[in-house]
Amino acid sequence: MSEQNRIYEFGKKIDGDATMKALLGGKGANLAEMARIGLPVPPGFTITTEVCIEFRKNNERLPNDVLDQVKTAIKNVEAQQGKRFGDLENPLLFSVRSGARESMPGMMDTILNLGLNDQSVQGLARRTNNPRFAYDCYRRFIQMYGDVVMGVRAHDDHEEEPFDRVLRQLKNEVKAINDVDLTAEQLQQLIERYKVLVEKTVGMEFPQDVHQQLEGAIGAVFKSWNNERAVIYRRKYNIPSEWGTAVNIQSMVFGNMGNNCATGVAFTRNPANGQREFYGEYLINAQGEDVVAGIRTPQPISALHKDMPSVFEQLVTVCKTLEDHFKDMQDFEFTVEQDKLYMLQTRHGKRTGLAAVRIAVEMVEEGRIAKEDAIRRIPADSISSLLVPVFDEQEKKGLKKLATGLPAGPGAACGKIYFSAKVAEEVHAAGEKVILCRIETSPEDIRGMLTAEGILTSRGGVSSHAALVARQMGKVCVCGAGSLHIDYTSKTIQVEGVVIKEGDYVSIDGTTGEVFAGKVATVPSEVNRVLSNEMSVEASYIYRLFATVMQWADDFRQLGIWTNADTPKQAQEAFQLGAEGIGLCRTEHMFFEDDRIDFMRKMILAPTTEDRIEALNCLKPLQRGDFEGLFREMKGLPVTIRLLDPPLHEFLPNIEEALATLSQKFTIPIEWIKTRVQALHEQNPMLGHRGCRLGMTYPEMTMMQASAIFEAMIQVMDEGIDVAVEVMIPLVAFTGELSGQIALIEAAAEKVMKEKGKVLTYKVGTMLELPRAALIADKIAEKAEFFSFGTNDLTQTTLGMSRDDSGTFLPDYIAQEVIERNPFASIDIEGVGQIMEIAVTKAKKVRPDIKLGICGEHGGDPDSIKFCHKLGLSYVSCAPNRIPVAKIAAAQAALDLNKQGQKN
Amino acid sequence: MSEQNRIYEFGKKIDGDATMKALLGGKGANLAEMARIGLPVPPGFTITTEVCIEFRKNNERLPNDVLDQVKTAIKNVEAQQGKRFGDLENPLLFSVRSGARESMPGMMDTILNLGLNDQSVQGLARRTNNPRFAYDCYRRFIQMYGDVVMGVRAHDDHEEEPFDRVLRQLKNEVKAINDVDLTAEQLQQLIERYKVLVEKTVGMEFPQDVHQQLEGAIGAVFKSWNNERAVIYRRKYNIPSEWGTAVNIQSMVFGNMGNNCATGVAFTRNPANGQREFYGEYLINAQGEDVVAGIRTPQPISALHKDMPSVFEQLVTVCKTLEDHFKDMQDFEFTVEQDKLYMLQTRHGKRTGLAAVRIAVEMVEEGRIAKEDAIRRIPADSISSLLVPVFDEQEKKGLKKLATGLPAGPGAACGKIYFSAKVAEEVHAAGEKVILCRIETSPEDIRGMLTAEGILTSRGGVSSHAALVARQMGKVCVCGAGSLHIDYTSKTIQVEGVVIKEGDYVSIDGTTGEVFAGKVATVPSEVNRVLSNEMSVEASYIYRLFATVMQWADDFRQLGIWTNADTPKQAQEAFQLGAEGIGLCRTEHMFFEDDRIDFMRKMILAPTTEDRIEALNCLKPLQRGDFEGLFREMKGLPVTIRLLDPPLHEFLPNIEEALATLSQKFTIPIEWIKTRVQALHEQNPMLGHRGCRLGMTYPEMTMMQASAIFEAMIQVMDEGIDVAVEVMIPLVAFTGELSGQIALIEAAAEKVMKEKGKVLTYKVGTMLELPRAALIADKIAEKAEFFSFGTNDLTQTTLGMSRDDSGTFLPDYIAQEVIERNPFASIDIEGVGQIMEIAVTKAKKVRPDIKLGICGEHGGDPDSIKFCHKLGLSYVSCAPNRIPVAKIAAAQAALDLNKQGQKN
Repeated sequence: MSEQNRIYEFGKKIDGDATMKALLGGKGANLAEMARIGLPVPPGFTITTEVCIEFRKNNERLPNDVLDQVKTAIKNVEAQQGKRFGDLENPLLFSVRSGARESMPGMMDTILNLGLNDQSVQGLARRTNNPRFAYDCYRRFIQMYGDVVMGVRAHDDHEEEPFDRVLRQLKNEVKAINDVDLTAEQLQQLIERYKVLVEKTVGMEFPQDVHQQLEGAIGAVFKSWNNERAVIYRRKYNIPSEWGTAVNIQSMVFGNMGNNCATGVAFTRNPANGQREFYGEYLINAQGEDVVAGIRTPQPISALHKDMPSVFEQLVTVCKTLEDHFKDMQDFEFTVEQDKLYMLQTRHGKRTGLAAVRIAVEMVEEGRIAKEDAIRRIPADSISSLLVPVFDEQEKKGLKKLATGLPAGPGAACGKIYFSAKVAEEVHAAGEKVILCRIETSPEDIRGMLTAEGILTSRGGVSSHAALVARQMGKVCVCGAGSLHIDYTSKTIQVEGVVIKEGDYVSIDGTTGEVFAGKVATVPSEVNRVLSNEMSVEASYIYRLFATVMQWADDFRQLGIWTNADTPKQAQEAFQLGAEGIGLCRTEHMFFEDDRIDFMRKMILAPTTEDRIEALNCLKPLQRGDFEGLFREMKGLPVTIRLLDPPLHEFLPNIEEALATLSQKFTIPIEWIKTRVQALHEQNPMLGHRGCRLGMTYPEMTMMQASAIFEAMIQVMDEGIDVAVEVMIPLVAFTGELSGQIALIEAAAEKVMKEKGKVLTYKVGTMLELPRAALIADKIAEKAEFFSFGTNDLTQTTLGMSRDDSGTFLPDYIAQEVIERNPFASIDIEGVGQIMEIAVTKAKKVRPDIKLGICGEHGGDPDSIKFCHKLGLSYVSCAPNRIPVAKIAAAQAALDLNKQGQKN
Repeated sequence: MSEQNRIYEFGKKIDGDATMKALLGGKGANLAEMARIGLPVPPGFTITTEVCIEFRKNNERLPNDVLDQVKTAIKNVEAQQGKRFGDLENPLLFSVRSGARESMPGMMDTILNLGLNDQSVQGLARRTNNPRFAYDCYRRFIQMYGDVVMGVRAHDDHEEEPFDRVLRQLKNEVKAINDVDLTAEQLQQLIERYKVLVEKTVGMEFPQDVHQQLEGAIGAVFKSWNNERAVIYRRKYNIPSEWGTAVNIQSMVFGNMGNNCATGVAFTRNPANGQREFYGEYLINAQGEDVVAGIRTPQPISALHKDMPSVFEQLVTVCKTLEDHFKDMQDFEFTVEQDKLYMLQTRHGKRTGLAAVRIAVEMVEEGRIAKEDAIRRIPADSISSLLVPVFDEQEKKGLKKLATGLPAGPGAACGKIYFSAKVAEEVHAAGEKVILCRIETSPEDIRGMLTAEGILTSRGGVSSHAALVARQMGKVCVCGAGSLHIDYTSKTIQVEGVVIKEGDYVSIDGTTGEVFAGKVATVPSEVNRVLSNEMSVEASYIYRLFATVMQWADDFRQLGIWTNADTPKQAQEAFQLGAEGIGLCRTEHMFFEDDRIDFMRKMILAPTTEDRIEALNCLKPLQRGDFEGLFREMKGLPVTIRLLDPPLHEFLPNIEEALATLSQKFTIPIEWIKTRVQALHEQNPMLGHRGCRLGMTYPEMTMMQASAIFEAMIQVMDEGIDVAVEVMIPLVAFTGELSGQIALIEAAAEKVMKEKGKVLTYKVGTMLELPRAALIADKIAEKAEFFSFGTNDLTQTTLGMSRDDSGTFLPDYIAQEVIERNPFASIDIEGVGQIMEIAVTKAKKVRPDIKLGICGEHGGDPDSIKFCHKLGLSYVSCAPNRIPVAKIAAAQAALDLNKQGQKN
């Protein structure tokens, strides 16, 4: 191959192979590979992705050497096919298709039947003795080429496509119902009208020169790399625009020459559930596009057994060949031309989470792949779909979709809608299933959220309060559904003319972000059914798959997987799923339960230190009880308890009447309460009096919490259960804060030990969640026995971006490609990652064995977990239902790092 | 001197000198130095500061070798004085005084007449033939020693000192009015009662062993290093606690042996105004403490010319000797014992800002010091006192002080108090002088602030909105006066039982933070009088001093001094004071003036992009006019214009009726306005939709501002005035923001150039105010032609601390020594400084000639300016009235860095 090879042939001569996806795209590389392993691939060639990049840089012009190499390649194909490109009697026709490194189905343009013109179509008619076929090919070609290359198309969604309009009009005139009803003559008429349409629209004739046709088609495919839907798709799936697409030019084979022809798509296994069965569909006498277009209903692949038994047998063999060779479930396209099978494409098949797990495990058991490959192959995020209920897809179809918000808490939920947490609680107590709907949620809503099936908000991103709490609770949540107009006064949602009233049924899908009016049945997850002892053969089998994958992940991963758990119930769930410790217990969440919020409020409103201590003394036994519960569930695994973090005003009600109630209950003058509420008001609470700043100004709070921890520890140890406590100090920016709080914790420990006559061991460490803390991590490491990166706050401060307020501009930023992904969902590696690296380097210099973790929301995000692995953290801590995801991501990170370079 | 020398003698043998202040303290080093240059210093010795540190570490016990060396030193003094310590007939008495590296006047304890006991007092009486003197010495000794060493003292402020009580009772009994009326016999009686008091209070007799006395006194002085007032003083003046104090033990000389004795304190020049005159006061027949105690009124030093002509002549010579030797104005203590002059202390005299300038300049003119020394010696901050009005000190004395807040905008102001910006404006229009009093201010108050003489708030720190705006306007401001209870409803301030009503006179001192009830005359600054062409000989002379100092500062400094100016008036003031450019024009401040706020509101409320553009088109000519004004004033110096920065809701009123008015004015439905206000509401506006995030979502805003800039540029250039524009993009975190905004600015420039047929040159750069931006400074430098550190925001985000909300805990942090200084007043070098350094290093790697500035409030803080110099920034930008301060600080930084090591 020449130095500047732009063209890779497949056919008799095969230049490429499956490893060359970056250069040839997935389709081109696999066409070459299929040809290599002897599968029947119509000959052709691939123009490389490098040419695409050059084309874009070169003002959308093809380099000359490319055209030269194209001509040579065409000659080679002509020789193999015994036809000539542009020949009037026996024309060689091509399909021209895009093919990027990663499959982007339907996103870019395709042109079939290229090489026909007014004269050669007659030759084709003569040669095939099938004028209808020939004219149908030509009219399809004009239609595709006119649309894709010449821009004859509708310019908004409401307009009818111009070619469709002309076709529809002709069919009306001749009273044809389907396209196939048109005769050869009528098709000729259609061709004439198409050509007029083209000339009228773009002011030039439809090109008759086949080389000009080809050049236009290649350019159009390259341009389609940047069409709107492709850009949107890339953004969604994080595909870099610098990759570019290849162009595959392949000699046409025809599934539409008669009833001994067919075309189809198939999977080597069932992509929905992963079962090992030949799965797919086909159409007799059709071209590939017809299968996708949905005009005729395809047959299930099993029917081919009857229609074309020999082809069917061949296909079954192809399946085995493909899987033996590609070592993965394949999704392939085929065409049968006059009883002869041709393979047009193969690729790794997309599959559901369940199928991914099943196929991976079974392929290991079949000896096709190693466990490492199985783990690498399961998208970490997809495993969570095994753990959450999903909608019954059939029922879902009939419903009115109201909006699509952000998928903030996976799973499907259905219930009556209520707009107040309090009412939601009452209705739930009366036995109803509830969807709690709020513009945005606040800590006051937590009890309502606990009782709801799902949570729906119109404001806030995937890291908003609603989303964070929902994920922590394992609740279904759709947030930031901005098109919903939620009105608390009238207790309605208005959206696009529809009005949903309080008590109406709404169904939300927290995996997709969809919001539906009405009731949809949900299907519980098999894994959860087994965990809840509801056995069935199918569920047991799936549970075994799940458990197998978890075991393999455990074998490979190096990162510890801990959990964020605030209650014994969450701890129990996490323990069942294999959490190795609690990395974050947010003690403040405990303060919202039951009556204790009132003691909390009393404490906050206390006019003197003595009053405050009195209120704290009421809270202490409750806190101690909470801690005991956690310790019992975790059975000696480390439990990291973070001291009080949020600003105090979050605990106070902000409604006049609630203040009056408080005033009565504690006989505190309402004026004092109001003054105190006003004094606690902050312009920017996120940057205000919170975290260890509370413990610094109210040392008695730290003392109370520390004492409760140590007393609980002794109680549970007395029950014969091991306890490992790590006390975590939040929002440290200065070493003086750390030493001040450590001194209080040590004093509390000493006091408890003296009272109880026991010796306790425990660790004290800190959240690392402010840039300043990262910058002085060496000094902090002198005092702290562990750090846990609080990446939510660290992201907010490093980017100067509030997670609650970024909803107004983040979508624009993502659309404008200023940032790739929501930095609250996946760590901003360039910025936040850099400062984490500074912190890790500095800390390890001082204390090489320091335990480093992460307990922000990012602890459950696969990409972030991989980054944490590279960073050398000891563990990630995530919500209980993210543990399986985290395990797989951690295993993948370990495998990737061991085998750098194998990945493209 | 031995290896472990703890004791440095002065007298015949002189171990120390003036350079040894770190080891001997200021007093000890200068006593040695005075002895060296032949001044009459009573012999004695100094125990080093190292011993103090050791004493603290050693559980407050003196090391044994110290006591041994003390004994040797005593022997040497005895030999020189011909007296013996502890001798019953001819006792050697000592004074024992503290002496730290930097003077901490009155902060630590002193003991005089040590070495007396029941027997030696009789010897002293016999030997001096003055029993009254002897017994007076002894009772003073018991009183001081009992208080300082034995702890016989009052334990709260309301209690009478026990020794004072006993003395008062005795004086009552014997009907004596003054202490001097007591006879020798009565003093003997007093001594007996004092000894009983001591024994009763501490349960042990007053020590008779002189070595025990001395050891106790030394320990007490060391302990006094950590007494409360010393700790508070150190905190205020940033004196490290690790320095420790020395102890000076000096043979007593007596100013109280008769009328040929005296004691006094004097300055070699006038410390109030710097005039070269012998200045001070003295008392005949008194001990040093009497001058300070204020029981007798001292005589001005000029009277000594008559009382003791020869001593006066000697003192005049001493002044010259001291200044010739120490090269600075000296503050010294002397005692005359029986017509013989003794020098007890000398130190560089504290002085006002004016005196500092005058003395420095005149000493250069006298040839005593170099210009460099003059610049080094003027505390940079003090120069600002020459520019602001001050209270008439006499009038101030008579007034009721209501509170002390934070000194947030220097100068003195007096006016009638009003609680609403609107009312303040109206009253001002009616010709009244107004003090605007708010709990805290918001952008809505800006017009009221402009018309007020001064601004007073009860909440917010030195970087609160009130403080920032006041300093920018050059207004007097006291903020965060938390003890004031401001009630908008009753329009009153309540504080400690006093009620101030609307319209009452209040006077505030923004240099000290004091708030007074009533009217105090203010004295305008001489420099401003000259700048305003109000000439007088005195003012002209002072202006010349000021200008001389500014010239020298310009000669030495390397940092550029730019200004933050939002209006032509501010630009003019800054230009007069020598600003070399505008480093920050906050365009948003322009939007609050006159009617334009309404256009701004219309723009914000616009339902569509078209409506928004329409409102922006109304704003554009106004903005253009503002920019023209700035360009004209700056006459070709660079003008850095920052695009709109604050979140939009800051421009909207938040009062229901104001919304209704808006609704009427623009015929926009009130519901829409309310919806919009709600939509713009943010949880943490500091981290919200602001800065370039506005320009990214509303590109038309950037276009409008950029067009206004370029059109103004052409207009002013057409007038024959040079214009240098730097467009600054705020709050950049991502390179995509920068390139997006740059593209808009370039498009606007091209459009204007095309329209006007001109070619414009300008720079585009960015604020660097987020940690993420600092971390990717290399990438930002690829696109930005300059950076300006916005250290206010950078501090908020790096520390995760809102300047508006930190008032609740920052004072505690400073008190607990978690941080040394308010990080919003002086750069937090460890954290924010570190990230600035990262940014500078990265940026210079990519663009070595990049222009780097700072335009946060820190640009006017001397310590921060010195840090910026070290960091290699190109310029600092500060409020106009801080320019002189900044120039001196910059010159000092340059001198310090050239002469590292000369400073201790």
